Amino acid sequence: MKTLYVIGIGTGNPEHITMQGIAALNRADVVFIPTKGEDKAALAAVRREVCARYISRDVRMVEYAIGSRDDSVVDYGQRVRDWHDEIAGRYEEMFSQAPEDGNGALLVWGDPGLYDSTLRILEAVRRGGMDFEVRVIPGITAIQALTAAFAIPLNTIGNPVTITTGRQLAAGWPEGADTVVVMLDGKRTYEALDPDLHIYWAAYVGMEMEILIEGKLGAVREEISVAREAARARHGWVMDIYLLRKMG
Amino acid sequence: MKTLYVIGIGTGNPEHITMQGIAALNRADVVFIPTKGEDKAALAAVRREVCARYISRDVRMVEYAIGSRDDSVVDYGQRVRDWHDEIAGRYEEMFSQAPEDGNGALLVWGDPGLYDSTLRILEAVRRGGMDFEVRVIPGITAIQALTAAFAIPLNTIGNPVTITTGRQLAAGWPEGADTVVVMLDGKRTYEALDPDLHIYWAAYVGMEMEILIEGKLGAVREEISVAREAARARHGWVMDIYLLRKMG
Ligand SMILES: C[S@@+](CC[C@H](N)C(=O)[O-])C[C@H]1O[C@@H](n2cnc3c(N)ncnc32)[C@H](O)[C@@H]1O
Ligand SMILES: C[S@@+](CC[C@H](N)C(=O)[O-])C[C@H]1O[C@@H](n2cnc3c(N)ncnc32)[C@H](O)[C@@H]1O
Repeated sequence: MKTLYVIGIGTGNPEHITMQGIAALNRADVVFIPTKGEDKAALAAVRREVCARYISRDVRMVEYAIGSRDDSVVDYGQRVRDWHDEIAGRYEEMFSQAPEDGNGALLVWGDPGLYDSTLRILEAVRRGGMDFEVRVIPGITAIQALTAAFAIPLNTIGNPVTITTGRQLAAGWPEGADTVVVMLDGKRTYEALDPDLHIYWAAYVGMEMEILIEGKLGAVREEISVAREAARARHGWVMDIYLLRKMG
Repeated sequence: MKTLYVIGIGTGNPEHITMQGIAALNRADVVFIPTKGEDKAALAAVRREVCARYISRDVRMVEYAIGSRDDSVVDYGQRVRDWHDEIAGRYEEMFSQAPEDGNGALLVWGDPGLYDSTLRILEAVRRGGMDFEVRVIPGITAIQALTAAFAIPLNTIGNPVTITTGRQLAAGWPEGADTVVVMLDGKRTYEALDPDLHIYWAAYVGMEMEILIEGKLGAVREEISVAREAARARHGWVMDIYLLRKMG
C-alpha cells in the first residue's frame, strides 16, 4: 500500500462528509471499515451508508471487527496499550491485502484527531516496519455537531474552552474555565456538578435518533439521566456529549 | 426570510465543505458573503469559489463589507459590542432583501461556533424583532485542519485539551494542561513560552500557500517568526494557528 487516507466521516449524519473526504474515498482501491462489536452495529451502518452514497468507482471493502478493551487488566494505561497492540496486528494483516502500489482508506468517526487512537496505532504499525504514507482528512467532530444542533457558539467572547472526558472532569472543574465540553462520559459525571451550570446535552447528535436537552443543570439533570437510560434501553447503546457553561 | 442557514465552509480549502453544507447552499434563495476589507480579499475569494463550484441552481449573491473593530475604543468588551451592533444593523438591511418566504445562507469561515461572532449577532438581530429560524451547518475548523496537516492526534490519550487565544495565553499557561491550541494570536505569544514545549505551527492551513513548521519550541520559534513575517509581507496578511504540547 502506498498511501492510506484516514478519513473523518463526521458523527452519524452521512452528509457530514466533506468533498475532500469523498475525493479521498474515490482514490482508494480498498476501504477498511472497522466494526466495534454488536452494540456499535448502528455506527457500522453509517460507515456503510457513506460508502454506498459517495463512492462512485469499483472499490474493495474490507470490514474488520476490533475487540473491546480487556477490562480485566487493571491499569488503565496498560489496558489501552494492550488494546492498541492488538489492533495494530489486525491492521497489519488488513493492509497487506491492499495492492502494493495502491491506496487504502480508513474511515474514522468524527475527526481522526479527537479522542481516537487510529493515528497512534498507525504510528505503531509503521514503526513495526510497514511503510506507507498517512494522509488525514479532517471531519466534523461531535463538538461541532453539538454546538450546531443548539445553534450556540462554542466559546464565550475571547475566552478559552476546555475539552475533556468524564473521567477527567470527575477529578475537578478545570481551573478558571467558563466553558467545558465533556466526551466519553459513561458515568453521568454531570449529575454531581454545580447545579447553576448551564448544560447543553446531546445524544446521537447528527443522527436520526438525536436527543437534545438544555437548561440549568439543577433543573434538567434528572431529565437527562432518564432520557439517557431510556435511549440506551431502546437502542442498546448510547453515545452522548455535553457542553457546560458558567453563566456570568 | 423564513430560514437562515449559517454554513461553516472550512478554512480555505473549498473541499472542506460538507455535503450538508452543499445541500443547504442549494436550498438558499440568497447567499450572503461577508468581506472583511482588503487584506481578507483572499478569504472572500474562497467563499466565491465555494459558491461557484457547489451551487447548482440560480441564486442571488449579496456581498457585504463589514468594517473592522474601531481600535480607538479603549475598552475591549465595548469595542467588540460596538462592532457587533454595527454588523447587526448591516445584517438587518441585507436580510430584508431576501424573499419573505425564502431561505438565506450565510457563509462562515471554519465552524460557526468557534471564535466567530455571527451567531451572537444573529441573536441580536432576532431580539431586535426580525423573525427567522437559524440553522447551523457545522464546518471543519482550523484546529482539525491543523492536526490533519500534521497527521497528529489533538489530545494525548484520555487527556483534556485547552483551546485558547494568544491574548489569554499571554496571561499564563492553563493549569495542568498538556495540550493547548492557540488561535487569534497576532502577537507571537509562543516566542516567550517554555522552550521545551513542542509546537505544531501552521499558517494558511488548508490553503494553497499553507506553511507548516514543527519542532521543539526553542529550536524552531525563530524560524516560525521569520516565516510568518515573510508570508505576511508576501500576501499582505497572515492567519496562523498552533498546537503546543508538553512532552512527557
Ligand atoms: C472515542 S470518542 C470519538 C470522537 C470522534 N473522533 C469525534 O471527532 O467526535 C467517542 C465520544 O465522542 C462523542 N460522540 C461521538 N459521536 C457522537 C454523537 N453522534 N453523539 C453524541 N456524542 C458523540 C461521545 O462523547 C463519545 O463518547
Ligand atoms: C476569528 S477566528 C475564526 C475561526 C474559525 N471559525 C474556525 O472554525 O477555524 C480566526 C482564527 O482562526 C485561525 N484560522 C482560521 N483559518 C485558518 C487557516 N486557514 N490557517 C491558520 N489559522 C486559521 C487563526 O488562529 C485565526 O486567528
